[in-house]
Amino acid sequence: MNLGQVARLLAGFALFFSASLLVPMAVALGEETELATKRSFAISLGVGLASAIGLWLLGRGSSRDIFRKEGLAVVGLAWLVAGGLGALPFVCSGAIPSAVDGFFESISGLTTTGATVLGTNNLAIDSLPTSILLWRAMMQWMGGMGIILVFIVLLPGMGVTGSRLLSSEQVGVASGMDQPRMQEQARRLFGLYIVLTLLAGLGYSLVGLGPFDAVCHAFTTVATGGFSNHNVSIGGYQNLGVELVAIAFMFLAGCNFLLLVRVAIGRRRTQRSSLLHDTEFRVYLGLTLVIAAAMTLSLWFAGGSVRDDSLGITRDYDHLGHCARDALFQTVSILTSTGYCTADFQNWPKTAIGLLVLCMFVGGCTGSTSGGFKVLRLVVCSKLVGYALRHFVKPRSVEKLKIGPDVIPDRIVSAILALLLLWLATVAAGTFILSFDARLDLVSAFTVSVSMMGCTGPAISGVVEAAAGEYELVGGLNIGPYGGYGALHPAAKLFMSLQMILGRLEILAPLALLTPAFWRR
Amino acid sequence: MNLGQVARLLAGFALFFSASLLVPMAVALGEETELATKRSFAISLGVGLASAIGLWLLGRGSSRDIFRKEGLAVVGLAWLVAGGLGALPFVCSGAIPSAVDGFFESISGLTTTGATVLGTNNLAIDSLPTSILLWRAMMQWMGGMGIILVFIVLLPGMGVTGSRLLSSEQVGVASGMDQPRMQEQARRLFGLYIVLTLLAGLGYSLVGLGPFDAVCHAFTTVATGGFSNHNVSIGGYQNLGVELVAIAFMFLAGCNFLLLVRVAIGRRRTQRSSLLHDTEFRVYLGLTLVIAAAMTLSLWFAGGSVRDDSLGITRDYDHLGHCARDALFQTVSILTSTGYCTADFQNWPKTAIGLLVLCMFVGGCTGSTSGGFKVLRLVVCSKLVGYALRHFVKPRSVEKLKIGPDVIPDRIVSAILALLLLWLATVAAGTFILSFDARLDLVSAFTVSVSMMGCTGPAISGVVEAAAGEYELVGGLNIGPYGGYGALHPAAKLFMSLQMILGRLEILAPLALLTPAFWRR
Repeated sequence: MNLGQVARLLAGFALFFSASLLVPMAVALGEETELATKRSFAISLGVGLASAIGLWLLGRGSSRDIFRKEGLAVVGLAWLVAGGLGALPFVCSGAIPSAVDGFFESISGLTTTGATVLGTNNLAIDSLPTSILLWRAMMQWMGGMGIILVFIVLLPGMGVTGSRLLSSEQVGVASGMDQPRMQEQARRLFGLYIVLTLLAGLGYSLVGLGPFDAVCHAFTTVATGGFSNHNVSIGGYQNLGVELVAIAFMFLAGCNFLLLVRVAIGRRRTQRSSLLHDTEFRVYLGLTLVIAAAMTLSLWFAGGSVRDDSLGITRDYDHLGHCARDALFQTVSILTSTGYCTADFQNWPKTAIGLLVLCMFVGGCTGSTSGGFKVLRLVVCSKLVGYALRHFVKPRSVEKLKIGPDVIPDRIVSAILALLLLWLATVAAGTFILSFDARLDLVSAFTVSVSMMGCTGPAISGVVEAAAGEYELVGGLNIGPYGGYGALHPAAKLFMSLQMILGRLEILAPLALLTPAFWRR
Repeated sequence: MNLGQVARLLAGFALFFSASLLVPMAVALGEETELATKRSFAISLGVGLASAIGLWLLGRGSSRDIFRKEGLAVVGLAWLVAGGLGALPFVCSGAIPSAVDGFFESISGLTTTGATVLGTNNLAIDSLPTSILLWRAMMQWMGGMGIILVFIVLLPGMGVTGSRLLSSEQVGVASGMDQPRMQEQARRLFGLYIVLTLLAGLGYSLVGLGPFDAVCHAFTTVATGGFSNHNVSIGGYQNLGVELVAIAFMFLAGCNFLLLVRVAIGRRRTQRSSLLHDTEFRVYLGLTLVIAAAMTLSLWFAGGSVRDDSLGITRDYDHLGHCARDALFQTVSILTSTGYCTADFQNWPKTAIGLLVLCMFVGGCTGSTSGGFKVLRLVVCSKLVGYALRHFVKPRSVEKLKIGPDVIPDRIVSAILALLLLWLATVAAGTFILSFDARLDLVSAFTVSVSMMGCTGPAISGVVEAAAGEYELVGGLNIGPYGGYGALHPAAKLFMSLQMILGRLEILAPLALLTPAFWRR
């Protein structure tokens, strides 16, 4: 392990990350706010620059060799460095007084989870300074970009990042990297990400959002992050146009970015076929439609009028259109792991809630900014089941697992299944650990655990049925879409931060960093 | 598919199964009970013989060839035939008036699940005629024997049935069977099963159970079934001796029977080493101890006195010994999928409940009468995770998965993982379907689904915390240890019966029967 070069790369990262603080700092200097807020960015910038210099000094004089291990170490540690630096403006400005809370919010942003400690303990999101809100949204946007760079350009061998990449693990850190190709790839992906962000911002502006809200929500939509400038998320606007723009861009951000690039720069005739021939995209689209339809029916069968006190409106679930609107938004938001919401789904019928938990687990496509286990991996799992069943009926059949024309190597299947096992074990362990909090019932603990591993954001409490439209939470702690994690124990928040990092970096990479074998030699 | 021979084999099975009805029939003739009860066994016997003759006539004249497919078909259909015939005494005697309920109880018995429709709807178990109680226990005992024969002797290739068998799939239906070896194996296993039953019955008698209770509980202990003659299960005796005998024999029944045979007939010196060198046994023992210890601590930390109205006693969980007693019993009972209970664990701390759900999922050893996913399969899964992690750190390492000295073939690993995926998908689908019942909250629906797939028996409702020792169920329906499934919708009961069969026959076999490819040609 060439620790010197790791330190030097982290120094560069810290420098870049500190530089991004200049944007909210400029906003803070321009806005009418407390001095502490303006000062907080200066302090953060100072600390960031100092860390960069310190890391650079540590790495001075070491060789420039970088291999797979160094790459992994940089990626894992970069998230921690950014988590620490990103928390400083929150803590120093007094927006989030506790250091643990600030770290949680920062990690939640960088992992594009969107879980928040705000919205409870009198820390209303709406009353935060503009500069802090912008920084929150920017962190998600940078986190999303980071994930795409890491998984498509730097470490494609870490998992299945796209059906085209199934058999091409030559790219990236693992094998001496083909520099020009990597740069070309990164340039395209970065371009696509910026174009999507601009279009989302434009879309939000056209349907009536103010410039600041449009920018922040464009950032957090394209990153499938889910931070909003309002306690009641997107629901507060009560604007169908805003919801449709959000649905469209959340869905796009949940697609494989390599596929989107191919479609965008491909020739006209091949564009549509390229999309519809992609197994993962087809399944992703199908899942979205089927789950949204089932959720719509579930809401409609339950029916009734539901008073939503947070929004001050009454929802009429006897009207199929209203059901479809809420079901589609929530499905896309949770499936892509964004976590925006337009309804408090904790009181929804259990069938709909079950579907939402399924969405948290599934997530979007590989090579996207979304979290969860990823659609392509589920496709591989279902192929394996079909294969086992056929093999069971005819034990002597010789058959290979395929996605489209590509044979899936056994090695990849094993890696995917190991990832699933680790995912499930981490969710189970998380449920167990979080359930030590007496206020979290088992449903809450489980959904929080799934939500963190899937980088979704909101969770779902167990509900005791009560009068129509009103409900009582089993444990009394609201961790749902209008709630927050502020009231949890600091230890729980640190554990959840770990889960977010594990979920975001596909478990194996951060776990590898924790094994002694990794650091040996 | 040689349907004629399948029919003929089923005819033989129906004849044997009908003959077993003679035992409870004799008891019924001797006891003071309603005429309907005495008559019910005669009716069942008549129907059984008629089915046997009908099936024999159907199969007359066909060739005697039997291959893998025929074997699978006989196994799958035998469970259905037995489920139907076994329900007749319940239904005809009026003990369980509804046909669906009778079928559920019968399938629950034959699959050694131990879920019951009794205990609710005024169908108290304690007031049933002796002959009916005996028949209930006998069905579990026969079901347990059947499972051991099926998985060790007939179809060892269906899954991993023991570390020794990992590489020997030559035995059994799949490949023209070595008759003498099969018969020898079956004889030994049958002998062990009978010896264990006799010892359990003797043990129960020595610690104070009456002869009838001792016999019935010996049957349902060794089968890891869990039917009891009392609404309050083993807890009603409030007898430490009974609990210790139950713990010992449940634990033994959860061991791999091939291993037990080896230890029993092996030479003195090799006996102990044979046990402790077996990876699955070591993990099984370790899991039992670790989980019981964790559960003890969880109960002790929560502390307090809990009034148990069903038993009319007060439990003192401030006393470590009481905690250990209840924790060990519940751990062994649920881990081995027996389902006896000595405490209403629905009001236990969530940590303890989480451990119980884990036990339901894990189950006992392969080649035992217990249900669940099985310890050896989990060992293989954890080896795969370790392998993936090491491979991730050093991608070029060449390594093979091993258990002890045996290399696990990739084919077996794939089959185990496919089974896990199917298991989880079935649990998820079950949760979804059962949650249509408004009285089952998500915790209830999930645990019922896990309990049926794991052939455990009782499930766990969501609980709203209330005054010490008292609690309110979220959905209001008690499906816990002192509750029952009688109040559920008939469709739910039929679905749960399907889950029990899927869980008992390791999913692949019954699922294969449902594919058209299976019946083709």
